[in-house]
Amino acid sequence: MEKRNAIIIILDGLGDLPVPEFGGLTPLQAAKNPNLDRVAAAGACGLVLVAGGKAVESDLAHLILLGYDPVKDYPGRGPLEALGIGLELQPGDIAFRGNFARVDENGVILDRRGGRKIPEAKELASSLDGIAVEGHPGVTFRAMHSSEQRLACALRGPGLSSNVSMPNNVRTGVRASECVPLDGTPEAKKTATIVNAVVRKAHAILESHPANKERASSNQPPINALLLYGPGEARTVTSMKDLFHVDAACVAGNGLIKGVCKYVGMVVLPCDGATGTASTDLDAKVEAVARHYKDFDVTLLHVKATDSFGHDKCCEKKKAFIEAVDAAIGKLLGKIDLAKTFLFVTGDHATPCVVGNHTGDPVPIAMAGPTVIRDHVTEFDEANCAGGYLGRVEGKYLMAIVLNKLDKLRKFGA
Amino acid sequence: MEKRNAIIIILDGLGDLPVPEFGGLTPLQAAKNPNLDRVAAAGACGLVLVAGGKAVESDLAHLILLGYDPVKDYPGRGPLEALGIGLELQPGDIAFRGNFARVDENGVILDRRGGRKIPEAKELASSLDGIAVEGHPGVTFRAMHSSEQRLACALRGPGLSSNVSMPNNVRTGVRASECVPLDGTPEAKKTATIVNAVVRKAHAILESHPANKERASSNQPPINALLLYGPGEARTVTSMKDLFHVDAACVAGNGLIKGVCKYVGMVVLPCDGATGTASTDLDAKVEAVARHYKDFDVTLLHVKATDSFGHDKCCEKKKAFIEAVDAAIGKLLGKIDLAKTFLFVTGDHATPCVVGNHTGDPVPIAMAGPTVIRDHVTEFDEANCAGGYLGRVEGKYLMAIVLNKLDKLRKFGA
Repeated sequence: MEKRNAIIIILDGLGDLPVPEFGGLTPLQAAKNPNLDRVAAAGACGLVLVAGGKAVESDLAHLILLGYDPVKDYPGRGPLEALGIGLELQPGDIAFRGNFARVDENGVILDRRGGRKIPEAKELASSLDGIAVEGHPGVTFRAMHSSEQRLACALRGPGLSSNVSMPNNVRTGVRASECVPLDGTPEAKKTATIVNAVVRKAHAILESHPANKERASSNQPPINALLLYGPGEARTVTSMKDLFHVDAACVAGNGLIKGVCKYVGMVVLPCDGATGTASTDLDAKVEAVARHYKDFDVTLLHVKATDSFGHDKCCEKKKAFIEAVDAAIGKLLGKIDLAKTFLFVTGDHATPCVVGNHTGDPVPIAMAGPTVIRDHVTEFDEANCAGGYLGRVEGKYLMAIVLNKLDKLRKFGA
Repeated sequence: MEKRNAIIIILDGLGDLPVPEFGGLTPLQAAKNPNLDRVAAAGACGLVLVAGGKAVESDLAHLILLGYDPVKDYPGRGPLEALGIGLELQPGDIAFRGNFARVDENGVILDRRGGRKIPEAKELASSLDGIAVEGHPGVTFRAMHSSEQRLACALRGPGLSSNVSMPNNVRTGVRASECVPLDGTPEAKKTATIVNAVVRKAHAILESHPANKERASSNQPPINALLLYGPGEARTVTSMKDLFHVDAACVAGNGLIKGVCKYVGMVVLPCDGATGTASTDLDAKVEAVARHYKDFDVTLLHVKATDSFGHDKCCEKKKAFIEAVDAAIGKLLGKIDLAKTFLFVTGDHATPCVVGNHTGDPVPIAMAGPTVIRDHVTEFDEANCAGGYLGRVEGKYLMAIVLNKLDKLRKFGA
């Protein structure tokens, strides 16, 4: 068979539920998306139960869709964020995701994201990078700014463990929880002690940081706390190349998703305009895909803001962003040949605007390409895709469908 | 998210197959059920493969639909029937389901249900309750009438086991099978010996019972045998509250289903007219649901006679009963607000009239409520529901769908 390429477009949190303002339609149903409809009409549709009907985080969802085991193969959010933004890790390093936050004099959280937009975030992160871990020789701490209020941090040194409790502090009005060892090993106790000391020291450094003095002079509240969560030990996993015999690449702006892609051995393609936010340069992203997809068996294009608008319950903005993505996909369709290329469009989970969080509802999928059976679905949305050729398919089977189309699936029993 | 409630209506043995008298339609297709169609049209439909395509008993089917493991969590029919009708059990008790039956002088079964309608059943059961278990000090036997020919029985005492063979004697013209130990333990041997002694003693008591003398005087055959089956050791299981963080209740007339519901920690709501038969008071049952469902996250309404008519191959009666249930659901729809409440309607298995027993065929499901995607299905039956949003869904995923709608599903990876 002639060599084919596949492009997989994932709209984060695409799935949704009836919105009263839209007369009971979902944002995707309410949106004008002629290009997504074109893909649906050209090929086959269905609904993806990404985690078998469970609500799921985006990093796990992507691991599942890429054919990995979300329990066995998941290293934790910290190592994935670090990988994604280029904080170099060695096996045994313990990495965390971090948030810059604002706390009062008793450590009570006032804003767990420090207002989200923090111009000084990079500078503040630098001031925490390499701070001394007193009393624990050989242990170093690193910090690197990711996006908005987010950082990746890591501990390196002897006798550390990731088996410590570090929940994401999502509530305001309470003190941030301390790091607690989850087993009786000296490693877990040592790590918890170090994490708590680092967090205290970070608080002191941030309190007296010149950037916060400048913020005070312009009546802005201080960014005075570091919240750490998602601990995990740096590790590797069998690459997509070794597992599925495919060369794979991605275009993404979000650090965590870039981390997942690097983790499974995908090439993260350069794309300056990709920010992982609503202001991302969608044209630049599809241009990056169009320029490189023929060099890879599988190219993943990730778009984040659909999810963010779902979290923020902004159904109009979610609808408008879907329309913007649709326009960009229209440009991509002008650059690829569906007689030779497979195109998959789906989401990684539902983030319904009426809920404001991830749910277990399925997400629509459309696929088109040279050997795709054409079904009767001509509109790409939650209700119409339900009647398509693919039916309801669990997320863990997506890669099998892709590999099958690429003729990369080993024959069972052969 | 605002607190929501879910109502799940289960029509026992609802699923069916084409009936020649109906020109190849199923009883549900042939029935006029405008209210079930209304639910279908308002929301999403599908087909439930309750046990993944296998034929399944009603108690197991309900356990599966309620999110339990039918192998690991199943205690046996005896303990469930006992729980359902209020025969109090302690851990370690061995419970059985029983039938009053009629045998000839050689113990050959003439009618395994003693004609089903036995006015003297309660009196006969009392005469067996507490009969002495000779030669086994400390072991007691209890019997309590359930419905029609059915009883729940239990042994209590030291050194008993439920690992004994006690099949349901469904054939007439043969002797009832003896109870046989299924392993070499003294406990299994002792239990088998006691069961066989109790059954012989019950035969003697029933033969000489005044009620049978009265039956003889009016030319009715005697009820002279006790058939025991479904042995199981009384045990507990994690409640729905602990497992899923939901408060759950049920309205049911059938003892076994009430037993399943109590077993998983549901509140059995009072409903005098619920009999578990075709003469059940459907209006009283929906009234009980309407009165209480707001106090619970999940309220289950069980209706039995659809199954009984399937067993008896009475397709006209099954159709008519479906229409009666539909009318009752119409009254329920007048009392609940689908903008705030989730309504699920389905069956626990198929009992096709042309077969007269449970089969593995899927059963239709419709769900409606505030965040349900509306699909194109407008008629609630086996063929139309197949094209709906839910597609084919395994029974074990029903509770995940319900919990997802109620926002009770924990996020995977969080």
